[in-house]
Amino acid sequence: MCQLLGMNCNSPTDIVFSFEGFRRRAGITDHHSDGFGIAFFEGKGVRVFRDDKPCSSSPIADCVKQYHIKSLNVIAHIRKATQGVVNLENTHPFMREIWGENWVFAHNGNLKTMPDLSESRAQPIGSTDSEAAFCYMVEKLKVRYHKKPSDQEIFNAVYDIAAELGELGTFNFILSNGQIMLAHCSTHLHYVMRKAPFGKAFRIDDDGVIDFNDFAKPNDRVNIISTFPLTKNEAWVKMEHGGFVMFKDGEKIHEVVGEYKLMEDDGTQCTQSRVA
Amino acid sequence: MCQLLGMNCNSPTDIVFSFEGFRRRAGITDHHSDGFGIAFFEGKGVRVFRDDKPCSSSPIADCVKQYHIKSLNVIAHIRKATQGVVNLENTHPFMREIWGENWVFAHNGNLKTMPDLSESRAQPIGSTDSEAAFCYMVEKLKVRYHKKPSDQEIFNAVYDIAAELGELGTFNFILSNGQIMLAHCSTHLHYVMRKAPFGKAFRIDDDGVIDFNDFAKPNDRVNIISTFPLTKNEAWVKMEHGGFVMFKDGEKIHEVVGEYKLMEDDGTQCTQSRVA
Repeated sequence: MCQLLGMNCNSPTDIVFSFEGFRRRAGITDHHSDGFGIAFFEGKGVRVFRDDKPCSSSPIADCVKQYHIKSLNVIAHIRKATQGVVNLENTHPFMREIWGENWVFAHNGNLKTMPDLSESRAQPIGSTDSEAAFCYMVEKLKVRYHKKPSDQEIFNAVYDIAAELGELGTFNFILSNGQIMLAHCSTHLHYVMRKAPFGKAFRIDDDGVIDFNDFAKPNDRVNIISTFPLTKNEAWVKMEHGGFVMFKDGEKIHEVVGEYKLMEDDGTQCTQSRVA
Repeated sequence: MCQLLGMNCNSPTDIVFSFEGFRRRAGITDHHSDGFGIAFFEGKGVRVFRDDKPCSSSPIADCVKQYHIKSLNVIAHIRKATQGVVNLENTHPFMREIWGENWVFAHNGNLKTMPDLSESRAQPIGSTDSEAAFCYMVEKLKVRYHKKPSDQEIFNAVYDIAAELGELGTFNFILSNGQIMLAHCSTHLHYVMRKAPFGKAFRIDDDGVIDFNDFAKPNDRVNIISTFPLTKNEAWVKMEHGGFVMFKDGEKIHEVVGEYKLMEDDGTQCTQSRVA
């Protein structure tokens, strides 16, 4: 398995405090040492750093730390390989163009059956179940909507795909286009919202401490998503199996709390149960 | 305009000697200071570094220099913006998936008319003519061949697209999938092959000197492609208007010397002239 880290906020924010705890799980406090990747949105562009070396000791990760990039949306991933060898093309996050935007995807889990991509124009480059699942998603979204739809329609469309692929195995993922961030939970995913009044946070993976009052402005809102909580003293929300959320500008704007439910186009939930 | 740098070789090679001369043209020996990017293939994976700061002074470019990445195929670009503002999404090289491979593209020139992408599934993310041209190419290649064709068929297909887009303006470009490297010349593009017997090379943009005997093995073959020669004493080949070459394992395997000619599927040239 792997671990996921996401950040969505309303003001460009440096993720280094969270990333420094997270990267210790790649060889020091945990065993997710088969490469890492981190993608920073900058407008419609994306800066991606990847390495097939452990994130805790990678010189590329050191470069990320030193550069202190501020971004509204960041997705990071540390890998413990289940399917696909340890190399660069199998390193998350994966990126594809949809509707003239960069979409970035990282997965934690293991799909026992690969989705059918025989007719898909989007094809995986590496050999992971994760990239195959993302290509399936890209193809479905492009075929369903030729032009970019509303956030609500994107939420519903990705939810349908998540529910379908979630039946093939464990499918925790984070997905973003640089404006919205979507998170789906099969087994383990948590999030926390940081906003005023700000206080101190104490990292779990080492003795790192930060006082957000030293960095944040009064209206800042920062959502952090992580496989497991990164701090000891904050109100992390544990997502349920089948839980699905959309964040935008640091706020949760759409949510299905748990268990799979079909969605209508207006965002209401169908009463019928899902047909596989 | 911009400047291009490409490397194709038969043994993983460190591009830093060439890159260190090239990056000086981004603010020191020339004025291509509107961002840079460099893509290193590593198997089917790609490591991309980009910055909207001048390459000569970018900390990201310093990181590239320090890391000494060895690769079989590298494409780099320093930008002097003609179309599209200076930001990350307008920074070359651009990358898209075709036939389950990463394809990387960098352009020097200026298309006066944008190609028609109204029916294209591949859409540009930024606002440059360069990315629009690449999307046009991606779409044409995916529609013409659903599965990856032979190198000769790729050469012919890209040549046809280059000839078509070359009529819309200046269209010097380098393109690679990590195995082959294609280069098309409208106005300025040069290449040099480095192989045994190796000797010294003297950089044009500073007083850098290298003796390749200190680094190369007897069978190494390295092709460097650059908008203008990077060294004073090597046999750089100046490509002609309409010239098009394919390199593989450091060798030139297909070539059209200059002027546009239609290609048959077996690689022979048609006698008829091109119809726009």
